[in-house]
Amino acid sequence: MATDKPFDRNALEQLINKRFFYAPAFGIYGGVAGLYDYGPTGCALQANILALWRNHFVLEEEMLELDTTIMTPHDVLKTSGHVDKFADWMCKDLKNGEIFRADHLVEAVLEARLQGDKDARFAQGHVIEKEVDKDDTKEPVAKKTNKKKVRVVAVALDAEVKQEYEEILAKIDNYTGPELGAIMHKYTIKSPETGNDLSEPEEFNLMFQSSIGPTGQLKGYLRPETAQGQFLNFKKLLEFNNDKMPFASASIGRSFRNEISPRSGLLRVRYVSIAFNTCIPNELVICLTILFAHSFASHSNSEFTMAEIEHFVDPLNKDHVRFDDVKDVVLNLLPASVQQAGKTDITPMTIDEAVAKGIVDNKTLGYFLARIYLFLTKLGIKKDRLRFRQHMPNEMAHYACDCWDAEIQSSYVRRRFLLICRDFFFASLGWIECVGCADRSAYDLTVHSNRTKEKLVVREQLPEPKVVERWQLEINKKVFGPKYKKQAKVLEEQLLAFSEQDLERHARELEQNDKFVVTVDGEQVEITRNEVTVQKVTVTEHGNEYALLFVCNLSYNLAHHPISPCCAVREYTPNVIEPSFGIGRILYSLIEHVWWAREDDENRNVLSFPAIVAPFKCALLPLSGHTSFVPIVRDLSYKLRRLNISSRTDDSKAAIGRRYSRNDELGIPFALTIDFQTVQDGTVTLRERDTTKQIRQSVEVVLQLLRDLSDETITWTSVLEKYPLFVAQEVDEQ
Amino acid sequence: MATDKPFDRNALEQLINKRFFYAPAFGIYGGVAGLYDYGPTGCALQANILALWRNHFVLEEEMLELDTTIMTPHDVLKTSGHVDKFADWMCKDLKNGEIFRADHLVEAVLEARLQGDKDARFAQGHVIEKEVDKDDTKEPVAKKTNKKKVRVVAVALDAEVKQEYEEILAKIDNYTGPELGAIMHKYTIKSPETGNDLSEPEEFNLMFQSSIGPTGQLKGYLRPETAQGQFLNFKKLLEFNNDKMPFASASIGRSFRNEISPRSGLLRVRYVSIAFNTCIPNELVICLTILFAHSFASHSNSEFTMAEIEHFVDPLNKDHVRFDDVKDVVLNLLPASVQQAGKTDITPMTIDEAVAKGIVDNKTLGYFLARIYLFLTKLGIKKDRLRFRQHMPNEMAHYACDCWDAEIQSSYVRRRFLLICRDFFFASLGWIECVGCADRSAYDLTVHSNRTKEKLVVREQLPEPKVVERWQLEINKKVFGPKYKKQAKVLEEQLLAFSEQDLERHARELEQNDKFVVTVDGEQVEITRNEVTVQKVTVTEHGNEYALLFVCNLSYNLAHHPISPCCAVREYTPNVIEPSFGIGRILYSLIEHVWWAREDDENRNVLSFPAIVAPFKCALLPLSGHTSFVPIVRDLSYKLRRLNISSRTDDSKAAIGRRYSRNDELGIPFALTIDFQTVQDGTVTLRERDTTKQIRQSVEVVLQLLRDLSDETITWTSVLEKYPLFVAQEVDEQ
Repeated sequence: MATDKPFDRNALEQLINKRFFYAPAFGIYGGVAGLYDYGPTGCALQANILALWRNHFVLEEEMLELDTTIMTPHDVLKTSGHVDKFADWMCKDLKNGEIFRADHLVEAVLEARLQGDKDARFAQGHVIEKEVDKDDTKEPVAKKTNKKKVRVVAVALDAEVKQEYEEILAKIDNYTGPELGAIMHKYTIKSPETGNDLSEPEEFNLMFQSSIGPTGQLKGYLRPETAQGQFLNFKKLLEFNNDKMPFASASIGRSFRNEISPRSGLLRVRYVSIAFNTCIPNELVICLTILFAHSFASHSNSEFTMAEIEHFVDPLNKDHVRFDDVKDVVLNLLPASVQQAGKTDITPMTIDEAVAKGIVDNKTLGYFLARIYLFLTKLGIKKDRLRFRQHMPNEMAHYACDCWDAEIQSSYVRRRFLLICRDFFFASLGWIECVGCADRSAYDLTVHSNRTKEKLVVREQLPEPKVVERWQLEINKKVFGPKYKKQAKVLEEQLLAFSEQDLERHARELEQNDKFVVTVDGEQVEITRNEVTVQKVTVTEHGNEYALLFVCNLSYNLAHHPISPCCAVREYTPNVIEPSFGIGRILYSLIEHVWWAREDDENRNVLSFPAIVAPFKCALLPLSGHTSFVPIVRDLSYKLRRLNISSRTDDSKAAIGRRYSRNDELGIPFALTIDFQTVQDGTVTLRERDTTKQIRQSVEVVLQLLRDLSDETITWTSVLEKYPLFVAQEVDEQ
Repeated sequence: MATDKPFDRNALEQLINKRFFYAPAFGIYGGVAGLYDYGPTGCALQANILALWRNHFVLEEEMLELDTTIMTPHDVLKTSGHVDKFADWMCKDLKNGEIFRADHLVEAVLEARLQGDKDARFAQGHVIEKEVDKDDTKEPVAKKTNKKKVRVVAVALDAEVKQEYEEILAKIDNYTGPELGAIMHKYTIKSPETGNDLSEPEEFNLMFQSSIGPTGQLKGYLRPETAQGQFLNFKKLLEFNNDKMPFASASIGRSFRNEISPRSGLLRVRYVSIAFNTCIPNELVICLTILFAHSFASHSNSEFTMAEIEHFVDPLNKDHVRFDDVKDVVLNLLPASVQQAGKTDITPMTIDEAVAKGIVDNKTLGYFLARIYLFLTKLGIKKDRLRFRQHMPNEMAHYACDCWDAEIQSSYVRRRFLLICRDFFFASLGWIECVGCADRSAYDLTVHSNRTKEKLVVREQLPEPKVVERWQLEINKKVFGPKYKKQAKVLEEQLLAFSEQDLERHARELEQNDKFVVTVDGEQVEITRNEVTVQKVTVTEHGNEYALLFVCNLSYNLAHHPISPCCAVREYTPNVIEPSFGIGRILYSLIEHVWWAREDDENRNVLSFPAIVAPFKCALLPLSGHTSFVPIVRDLSYKLRRLNISSRTDDSKAAIGRRYSRNDELGIPFALTIDFQTVQDGTVTLRERDTTKQIRQSVEVVLQLLRDLSDETITWTSVLEKYPLFVAQEVDEQ
């Protein structure tokens, strides 16, 4: 398949465009960066992927599917943290007003300089040649077309500078705007195309904003994820589920992200002009990388279809009743510890072992990782090009316990891996995260509950009293109140809402540093040892009303929890395990994985979608425009519809071979040919796409086979074992 | 069923809420008017409706389905006319700032006054009693609860006033803002709740606005319909279809409409307060009508799922190749002519006859009306509560040839029919348009083509020359240029883009009035007889290059059409027939149509969804929590999933009868009960929802039956004929 040869993305993009899988939206208006339309093939493929997703997840586990609104009022996303934190830092070319994402710019420029250094060393046999620098970097690229290659883009760096760059890149996701500004000053980073000065980084929220109703007073955003709609309905869902735990909700829908991409107006204008870039030619290479990163399969789609599951689970028991069904599934794991050691080696391991060894935090998380693997491979994603990468501690949201991404290898480069996989990149292959699977703890339900005063908890009848140890925070009111004055109340609420894990960490910090830091309304506040005590206490769950408040991993202010008269009731905020699927990325990766060219002819593209997701299952091909074929095609088409087998009739005048090729490019697994023998004896030929082999049987037999092949209840191999091959097509008119 | 008794919407709304079909979105935040979330039942029901839609329309006719973006740049919607015309007039209470949609307010107030008049006459035996007016209108409603009924809300009107009101209401959709303002002054219409003065009507665009990218320079809107995305892809679609005409594209997706509803923030606040309204008590009734109009099933959802088809057709041949398949389908028609005579009588007629008589404009339109009928009735919409209403000339867009709405009768009142159906309204039943089916002519493709200079046409090889008569407009450049100066070019383009119909009309106007009026950039310009000539000319299509430009119903400026060297090619802009489905309205209406209560117990609600759309197909009910049932339920659940039959397991401790009731309310057509006999002999009982009858057979037999019943390939009646009834459930533990 395609992996044996150098990957030719141009050829694939042409195919995708020609067979209208997708295309830039508003093309006749010049296009808008980040917006794509799915054509008939892409749309059918997407519908089949989603149908399989629904069967595999929703139906399989009786999940409660929701369809919630896209427009979301400000208050909801303020509470969830998106209004304050879902932002990137941008800076502006002070002369032409062009806008850059600050971290991307710093990363791209430093990467370019590092690559230049590497190339210089490589070109000169690892000797730093200052002349190279002098000769080749001051002139425009355009003049050098005849002496391109490595030497042209090579600029050597001092060893210390190189190390500083690498340290910055390793932490590139963690800088604040002012820090990025300081780096830009220190290393003289300018607007790459013009060399102009840049503004200081400013924050830009990534949500599309709008206002609801004619007064404009009710601010709204287009949702950045479907998750919030599911959290807000938690109470109704629990009730719908007859108060039974655990359970999962699910949602398929469009989400939005207003990306900082330069000149959002017209697509690709920027990248064409950059080819005539002058300053440091290396940046050319990296800017073209940004071009890739802004393409279809990347982060940067402004509008994308997600499929998300929120599995609500008891924080004290994250086992899963069906874990044993999947325990022997082997996953390619890339744990955080390996990455922290600067490596990307993959460890194949059963999910059972991964959970037992504590690499994957709990069985429910493990169950979903395995189920995600089974889903993706069923779609047609290649097993050896799929891995599960654990987030490193600094990547995760502060509330998350554990988080894994299912990453699929494709020709697109995941930006933040440029550094690690630079060699890889130049071979034009990379890993894109397509599914995230995070344990979000009780964060979301807790913040919405605090904000709305609506209890989002589970009440459980406790079988017998229990003695448990819990972390507990006590406030020294005498010091606390006077010190924080008006801020005291907000601060107190936040302190009392800490999770067990948070409390444990803060206890350690108090011990070591006599203080810990919390962020209130964007401001950092230091809490010292004389203001609070954090300690482990022993409590009995049954009979001790106060203890009930600390059972789950989030403790509450008393005011939120009126005590129930029955003390044997445990009340807790569920934790949430969230598998979240980026459907567009999966769809693109799948196309790459199933694409190949027939050996006899490189131009004969084939897309080997498994029948179950193929955009259309069957092509109907009358041998010619002869009138005797018309009623037969009509009848066959009718019968296929009755069996819910989607078909495309191709009665164009093109030769049958040409039409086969067309259908191969559409990824249609089966073709029925109607010829003169059909008119005589009612038989048709059935051709399979990958093998190009055919059988000839009666219409009735072929239709039954087609149904079973489309549902994947039988294989083509078994068909060939049962029925004789058909070789010669009768092409003459009788 | 429900229609026999007075319709109790409260009861239905409780059911919908309890079984979580849908609920106001952001409920725990107080809700936002016009935004709803679908719960697990509603979401599954919607998914099944959409799956059926895809099978019935897309698969059946090999339509080209697209999935296009929601975010749409300003230019596109400026061209389509939405930026300028997709607006309503609003006015403001000058003291409290409350906002009203001006036409709704005028309509509501005048309706209220007319109803008051009618009630007064009815109450007083058709005698106008001025005392009634005096007695009953000055006091608050709240004080009158004990002498409510008709007299309370009755205010008689003078005969001339009454007639004026009725004339205004008949034309209520056609007034401009200033005209509405004049009416409000003349008839002293004030803010209904407060009696305060109102501002002059101002225009408010109904699209949600946002901006794309960080500069904020690229204005965007959330699409108000999916149609534009389909038009913009026309060229790619035609190519995908191997240049074959006619063909249809289709799209399912979310659309948006920023409705003028008072206090968009919190739901229903306004309507509760209005119950204490004082001024004219009648307005209470009508304001409550507006409450209905703002509910789920109405126009006023800000976010809604649409399914739209754009069938592209040769304007000179609007026949449909499959028309004969549906020609005998009988539809309940309400033609424009009947409505213009002030009646609402329905004429049942075959679609063949309707087209033959010219009631329905053409066969393609007729074909789709019949297909819409077949779709809706297959879903479970009752045939006698479904009608097809033709738009009256003043309702249609100026470019539309013909337009029909499929209207479904439900308890919700369609606002603009209050006048016609007032008696109807008080019986609390009305018609809502759920599907529109319009012939949009070549309007959309033409305007986008003009704006982008991209040719959106079909090129057809002409078989032989033809002599045809066409309307032609010629500009007297000597007069025209000097008079219009800078405006001349824009004006000329517009004049040369007129359709045949427009030209014919303008020729008539020139003859009668020596002038006609065109609107350029919102300004009205009078074109007089000495500036242009409009006349009929005879042209030969083949061999006469110029003539080619006038073949289709939209003529072009020469500059847009470089002449092809082969003169026997016809180039035309296709017309578009657009069936457009409001999925939320269909879903709500369906729930009303299938809702009834068992005769023995009014509280035993049943939703008799046909199996094919029922949210879940099968309930799995273990008789009790006995451990021996657990593996059987698990195995059955697994087998059902393998057959793609969606099931819900209800293993709660509720009695089996209670659980049957619960499943009736969820509309689950079949239930399998696992009891102690199952453990012994592997048989289960299969119960059908509507009849409550049961059979008892082996698991294997029952699963096969379930599959065929779910696909609707067999009926329950045929099952009962084949298998004996099962009566006594074995409930004792063995």
